[in-house]
Amino acid sequence: MSFVNLFSRWMDGQGPESDIVISSRIRLARNLNSLPFPRRADLNSLQQVIQEVEKSLQKNNSPQLKLIKFASLPLVERQILVEKHLISPQHGQNEQGALLLNEDGSLSVMINEEDHLRIQCILPGLQLTEAWRQTQELDDDLTRELDIAYDEDLGYLTCCPTNVGTGLRASVMIHLPALAYLGRLEPVLRSITKVGLAVRGTYGEGTEARGNIFQISNQVTLGRNEEEILDNIQRVTTQIVEHEKNARDILVKSGKVKLKDLTGRAYGVLANAYVMTSTEAMKLLSDLRLGVDLGLVEGLSPKLLNQLLVLIYPAHLQRLQGKDLEEHERDFYRAALLRENLRKREE
Amino acid sequence: MSFVNLFSRWMDGQGPESDIVISSRIRLARNLNSLPFPRRADLNSLQQVIQEVEKSLQKNNSPQLKLIKFASLPLVERQILVEKHLISPQHGQNEQGALLLNEDGSLSVMINEEDHLRIQCILPGLQLTEAWRQTQELDDDLTRELDIAYDEDLGYLTCCPTNVGTGLRASVMIHLPALAYLGRLEPVLRSITKVGLAVRGTYGEGTEARGNIFQISNQVTLGRNEEEILDNIQRVTTQIVEHEKNARDILVKSGKVKLKDLTGRAYGVLANAYVMTSTEAMKLLSDLRLGVDLGLVEGLSPKLLNQLLVLIYPAHLQRLQGKDLEEHERDFYRAALLRENLRKREE
Repeated sequence: MSFVNLFSRWMDGQGPESDIVISSRIRLARNLNSLPFPRRADLNSLQQVIQEVEKSLQKNNSPQLKLIKFASLPLVERQILVEKHLISPQHGQNEQGALLLNEDGSLSVMINEEDHLRIQCILPGLQLTEAWRQTQELDDDLTRELDIAYDEDLGYLTCCPTNVGTGLRASVMIHLPALAYLGRLEPVLRSITKVGLAVRGTYGEGTEARGNIFQISNQVTLGRNEEEILDNIQRVTTQIVEHEKNARDILVKSGKVKLKDLTGRAYGVLANAYVMTSTEAMKLLSDLRLGVDLGLVEGLSPKLLNQLLVLIYPAHLQRLQGKDLEEHERDFYRAALLRENLRKREE
Repeated sequence: MSFVNLFSRWMDGQGPESDIVISSRIRLARNLNSLPFPRRADLNSLQQVIQEVEKSLQKNNSPQLKLIKFASLPLVERQILVEKHLISPQHGQNEQGALLLNEDGSLSVMINEEDHLRIQCILPGLQLTEAWRQTQELDDDLTRELDIAYDEDLGYLTCCPTNVGTGLRASVMIHLPALAYLGRLEPVLRSITKVGLAVRGTYGEGTEARGNIFQISNQVTLGRNEEEILDNIQRVTTQIVEHEKNARDILVKSGKVKLKDLTGRAYGVLANAYVMTSTEAMKLLSDLRLGVDLGLVEGLSPKLLNQLLVLIYPAHLQRLQGKDLEEHERDFYRAALLRENLRKREE
């Protein structure tokens, strides 16, 4: 597998609440007892981690995971993995990093990120429970033969103290355009942080929320069991979904023509511009998605719009063009990509 | 003829320099010797003017002119004549006003405007000489049997002193988007006023230039003969056309992609918005027309764009909808009209 798939299952635009919740992710941090944490490990230890995982894979029937070693993966291909939310930007920089990945990208394991293993499942829509089930299954399969660092009192040992305990991070990517238009985002997001959850931008910690897409995740894993963590984020997500639905109702009632105008203009510019920054594209795709969700725009699927959210990023554009691109070239090819994909509606 | 045609020959988008000069107009002011100027005339005198013209029409083979009396023409129909540049707004308010009009709107005579007769010809493109020829022919035909006020020293007598002499006003409607984008309009327009010509907005004196369309006309008719007046405006117009062509060349050389982006976005918004003011529509139609003229946009004719320049105005919208419209309704129907007409391109 020399090249990474451009599409992932989480882009499908299906699943519960998928008009608002784009995807659900479960991630488990696990470390090998016998080796130092990646940050303190030498080259040899890091390679040993990969070897241990490979050995474990051969002994188990893990669901068709393929191993991708970053040492032999071009930087642009690693960046594609970042843009698809499969690895972190830091992980992509690590020459001793690796990724286990299944065919549709729903199951994966980051190797030698902050922890030796970060086992994850990403599904479309609000499917935390199902993602949790699949992650546990993969965890069981993969670590059966491995000696995992675990303390009777603390639970799973991890590099960062915030992950100690269950090692579980649960998160959702959620699209909140109506709350944004009504100027009601701030109180809603503030209430999330009050119940121990974190709100982040599209690409995790320290990144901007572009196109009104937010990542909500649990902060602390110690002192709570898995069910409590999942219940909390599921409950809060459901509440935010309700807030966003109410906001959409208000927008529709206050004037369908205005909304059709907003989404129509977004479509018109996306389908006809020749130069476009990713920030503008995210903003307009957000408007357009709102129109699709409200049934005001026909002939465009949530799946296509989810895919475009990722395809407009630099590494994906460069892969599609088969060459490195300067910033102004990316703005040109991004516009071309959007025109080609969005005009199909009218054919 | 109870209803006025929506289209006029000047919208054809043909003729010399028609990518920059939208239309050319010649207008001759003539008054009857026996009756006071319209502003000083009583009801009876005004009606007499119309009767004299009707009599003259019957005796001559004037080119199929039909008489439209404003007294029996709904206000919205008079406003349509204003929006098509066939009568002045003031003229449309006059219950004793009337208009002679041929089938394609190229020849017309305002009756009881400021002067008893204002004989005019409007043609597409830069065709002042041909318009002058047709106006003279109509003048000869129409006034053969009429006693026209003429002074051996002053020439034709008119209500306003600026028209005394030849009674000739020559004007062109000219589209200058590239000069506007380069910020070079001001010096060009200033140079026009220095040679005794006037620059006005789209709907004549005191109106704004919307969509980068300007009306250029001679100021004074006294002391110059017809040929001098026509030569002057023809020469100046040709110079401005050159300036605009140079400006377009500069825009194209400085980046075709940017221009395609500008005109593509204009098209996208025009063809997909659901609410649009006439000011925004004029601005975007100007951008789009530039793209059509430069061959950057395909499948749209200058004729359609000229027609839309007029159809987006209030009276035309109300006629098309068959009812009175509030301002916000006009913004809605204007957007609908533009969508319907501009999307045809893609069929």
